[in-house]
Amino acid sequence: MTAEGVAVLAIGDELLGGYTLERNSALIADELSALGLEVRELRVLRDNEEHIAEALVELARDHRFVFVTGGLGPTLDDVTRHAAARAAGVELELSQAALAEVREWWSGRDTEMPSANERQALLPTGAVRMTNSAGTAPGFRLALGAATLIVLPGPPREMSTMLQESVLPWLEREVPEADLQTRHFYLFGLGESDFAERVGAWMERDANPLIGVTASRGVLTVRMRAVGDEASSAEARLDRASLEFRERFSDHIFSESEATVEFALAKRLEASQVSITFAESCTGGLAAASLCRVPGVSSLFTDGFVTYSNDAKVRRLGVSPELLEAHGAVSEEVARAMAEGALLMSGARLGVSITGIAGPDGGTAEKPVGLVWFAVAVDGRTETLRRQFPKHSRDWIRDAAARTALHLAWTHVPSPSLEAK
Amino acid sequence: MTAEGVAVLAIGDELLGGYTLERNSALIADELSALGLEVRELRVLRDNEEHIAEALVELARDHRFVFVTGGLGPTLDDVTRHAAARAAGVELELSQAALAEVREWWSGRDTEMPSANERQALLPTGAVRMTNSAGTAPGFRLALGAATLIVLPGPPREMSTMLQESVLPWLEREVPEADLQTRHFYLFGLGESDFAERVGAWMERDANPLIGVTASRGVLTVRMRAVGDEASSAEARLDRASLEFRERFSDHIFSESEATVEFALAKRLEASQVSITFAESCTGGLAAASLCRVPGVSSLFTDGFVTYSNDAKVRRLGVSPELLEAHGAVSEEVARAMAEGALLMSGARLGVSITGIAGPDGGTAEKPVGLVWFAVAVDGRTETLRRQFPKHSRDWIRDAAARTALHLAWTHVPSPSLEAK
Repeated sequence: MTAEGVAVLAIGDELLGGYTLERNSALIADELSALGLEVRELRVLRDNEEHIAEALVELARDHRFVFVTGGLGPTLDDVTRHAAARAAGVELELSQAALAEVREWWSGRDTEMPSANERQALLPTGAVRMTNSAGTAPGFRLALGAATLIVLPGPPREMSTMLQESVLPWLEREVPEADLQTRHFYLFGLGESDFAERVGAWMERDANPLIGVTASRGVLTVRMRAVGDEASSAEARLDRASLEFRERFSDHIFSESEATVEFALAKRLEASQVSITFAESCTGGLAAASLCRVPGVSSLFTDGFVTYSNDAKVRRLGVSPELLEAHGAVSEEVARAMAEGALLMSGARLGVSITGIAGPDGGTAEKPVGLVWFAVAVDGRTETLRRQFPKHSRDWIRDAAARTALHLAWTHVPSPSLEAK
Repeated sequence: MTAEGVAVLAIGDELLGGYTLERNSALIADELSALGLEVRELRVLRDNEEHIAEALVELARDHRFVFVTGGLGPTLDDVTRHAAARAAGVELELSQAALAEVREWWSGRDTEMPSANERQALLPTGAVRMTNSAGTAPGFRLALGAATLIVLPGPPREMSTMLQESVLPWLEREVPEADLQTRHFYLFGLGESDFAERVGAWMERDANPLIGVTASRGVLTVRMRAVGDEASSAEARLDRASLEFRERFSDHIFSESEATVEFALAKRLEASQVSITFAESCTGGLAAASLCRVPGVSSLFTDGFVTYSNDAKVRRLGVSPELLEAHGAVSEEVARAMAEGALLMSGARLGVSITGIAGPDGGTAEKPVGLVWFAVAVDGRTETLRRQFPKHSRDWIRDAAARTALHLAWTHVPSPSLEAK
């Protein structure tokens, strides 16, 4: 396995103040993993030249590549160039090429370069400049002992652009090519720790393929990465492991290409040419809005109903007042009537409804906060689903309910073959 | 100013793998700032006992408090206890009190403690145990040279709980009390860099009050923090600065208590007892869903319209087909008709509409991607707003459009006094 040590040093007071999360190291780690390079240490420091220089020397001793992000701006606080020069024991010199680049950026904005920005054209002697097409601060590479410093701007958008345009092409030449392959699986309805338990040895550090997982809003994104060796190619390893993985998690995998339930649902609707509508109470339009994230979904999703009050359920969906009176708005019966009403009113083929108690108030012993009823009506059949979500925040419950509705719809899209019968 | 050096060392392979962001240091920094304690360095390391021990020694040399998070689990990978003992040059011993606590946690779940978890009751000699009411891993404090290590579990929920329950009460006794006050302002429609330019010296490191800002989804959260001294109390400093700040940013401040536009809008609707409805095209329910985040808003928001297709705009909102034909769905005229139609159909007093081109396709030279028309109808008057958003992602444009609609509604809620006239 081609593994090379990488460290990231992120510079910036704001990254330690409690309000801005350090994100560049994750972006770097993600891109570098495809080259078999591992980020083994991250440090975050304030804009202090001496401390930064010390950290650079330490990190360069233990790692082959040291990425530095931030502190390349035009103000006196921006000391990364000075710290790099100090660490390498060299001077800073004004690079005419860098200066021309900074000037050009400003003239492209019909503005003369402020004199403060001249500072951004200073580079340590021996540094190799890297163009920044997304901002004013050029980056650079600099040898430090046996390591290479790779110095990039702090704003993640600029950092990413320079990473893609200047750093990765260079790194690909530096690092011997490895047989690496990655595959993704997207799962719904399974907790991260349950997953970790069931996936077992695949998550151990030396596993090949190695599985990493990240949980976000009910969806587990599973990244399976294999390295080829004399025994087996990366692809063959992934093929074998995928078969086993699919079998083990068949109840939960909703896609191997779409990272969200709404995109997977849109793909199915499109493949089957099934139109959809939503009738939402506690989610207030969240399920509909999620599906509208998908470009081009408008041909199959024409309208949705936000019926927050009982009165709106009656007027807009034709739910009978007696039904509401008898069972309450949060009930299997009303969920069913909402889904069926939405179908009638919109003319769609598949209708999904959501009615629940998102809290924090409004719960009772019989119908506690977190109780949500769903219904899905399609081709003359209506099925219902009851979920008692944990009593987390109102946002959490509403979000979980919207995603559950989208997943429920996904499981009920008639397949094109059935339709053809 | 009472400022004391704090370092955070976060442990965990997953924090360096590119998928899990390190969040504990921000939580710690935020809580500690109220005590005048500053986080000056963050390191993130993998589960390697030797490296962790070395880093602890280094960090303890330069800081008064060193927070360590993670690596307290029951598996062999969890080496933080061993590393702390090694750094302090002491042994690990089984703490009967800690063992009882771990056992109790399991028995509270009607499960016998797995034998692996016994490891979690090991503590370095001389450590002071801290109870973890949110999980199985006890934390501890340990002297290391002149510094104190504060060792906490990695999951942010457990870390936060222990920080609140065990660490802060202890720190408040350790650290001399300071006269510190914080105030917040929430701004809409201003970029972070424009703000930084206009706010000037208030953001410089030694300013008092000091302003920190974080941008999220169009909203700037501004935190103004003052430290009292012999010349002036923290509160008096904040009072003076607030007056100036409010004047300078009056066009943008929408709240000093509500962190989001939807909560500020709900507060105004509630104060004026004005009911609201939404007619949404490209946002697909996002504005309505945002308002439904607010508990108890159902009395003033009863229903909303997701009318994604032209046909739905005609059927559900009474927009005339001729108008759609003449001006297109994304037009001032249709936005106006949608808002007025939504009022008629719902019976609400204030109606907001959104119709635009979220992309990535569907733009033309005349109506490019990012063009969104809004209308707000209230008490017989309708006003419209045109926004050409930058050509960012579809998600970005839709989110910006929903938030703009909520802010537009906020500016048009009739005040209670006007209503009384």
